[in-house]
Amino acid sequence: MENREIERKWLVEKIPYDLNSLECLDIEQAYLSASPTVRIRKENDEYYLTYKGARNMEGNSDLNHSEYNLPLDRESYEHLKGKMDGKLIMKKRYLIPLENGLKIELDVFREPRQGLILAEVEFESEDEAHAFKAPEWFGVDVTGVKEYKNAVMALS
Amino acid sequence: MENREIERKWLVEKIPYDLNSLECLDIEQAYLSASPTVRIRKENDEYYLTYKGARNMEGNSDLNHSEYNLPLDRESYEHLKGKMDGKLIMKKRYLIPLENGLKIELDVFREPRQGLILAEVEFESEDEAHAFKAPEWFGVDVTGVKEYKNAVMALS
Repeated sequence: MENREIERKWLVEKIPYDLNSLECLDIEQAYLSASPTVRIRKENDEYYLTYKGARNMEGNSDLNHSEYNLPLDRESYEHLKGKMDGKLIMKKRYLIPLENGLKIELDVFREPRQGLILAEVEFESEDEAHAFKAPEWFGVDVTGVKEYKNAVMALS
Repeated sequence: MENREIERKWLVEKIPYDLNSLECLDIEQAYLSASPTVRIRKENDEYYLTYKGARNMEGNSDLNHSEYNLPLDRESYEHLKGKMDGKLIMKKRYLIPLENGLKIELDVFREPRQGLILAEVEFESEDEAHAFKAPEWFGVDVTGVKEYKNAVMALS
């Protein structure tokens, strides 16, 4: 239910895979609060409320980056969607297994960010994240770049 | 962060205590979703987002009654308050210690439920809840009565 995210993110120009051969999630997400992040997400037929602790929240240093994914049903998801800030994010997420139990989450965005493709890899530790050698076909490393955060895309 | 609630609730007509001698929380709460419950709460100067799993949510029987209290700050609280359904619940909660580590949470409501007083006691187990002998000054046991659920008061 709770997990901490250590992840890196890259721009992708061209995907050297047949997308139809990959496991795919149809994702829709919207934000109710930017910081801490309160987000709703639909993944195929599953619905979640996600909370991500704010970095700057006083007295909660242990909770930094803590993430909770809490189940919603379709009705509560649609109800909360009516309260969203900014724009709905819509993307297809393709899952590409790597060695060492890692996987690439390849996000292919729809309107209003049509054409944007981001690859994310999540790691168990900071060391593993630093040591990771990105595949040749990954573009610019945009880890931590605000412009490519989903919340910023939804809210700007 | 997660806890399950086993509690009983009673109406109270008259309080045999000097309220000024009791520890008190000034509570304001509002609902964004009824089921599962997504609620925001202000307790004095602390702010929370609370999630309570729905009883009827398919595939999540382990989460029944699970409750998560996740920190907000004042800004995110006020922002989310702008999205609330129904009415704001405002009450003062007085804390009265009992034997065996139990305590009474005595909720004295303000508008729109001015005059309503509810006493709640939370227990470690169902057995303890059943065995509990309520103080003489407690009125009708309204455990589980919809009309006295905060969500119902806010949303009806």
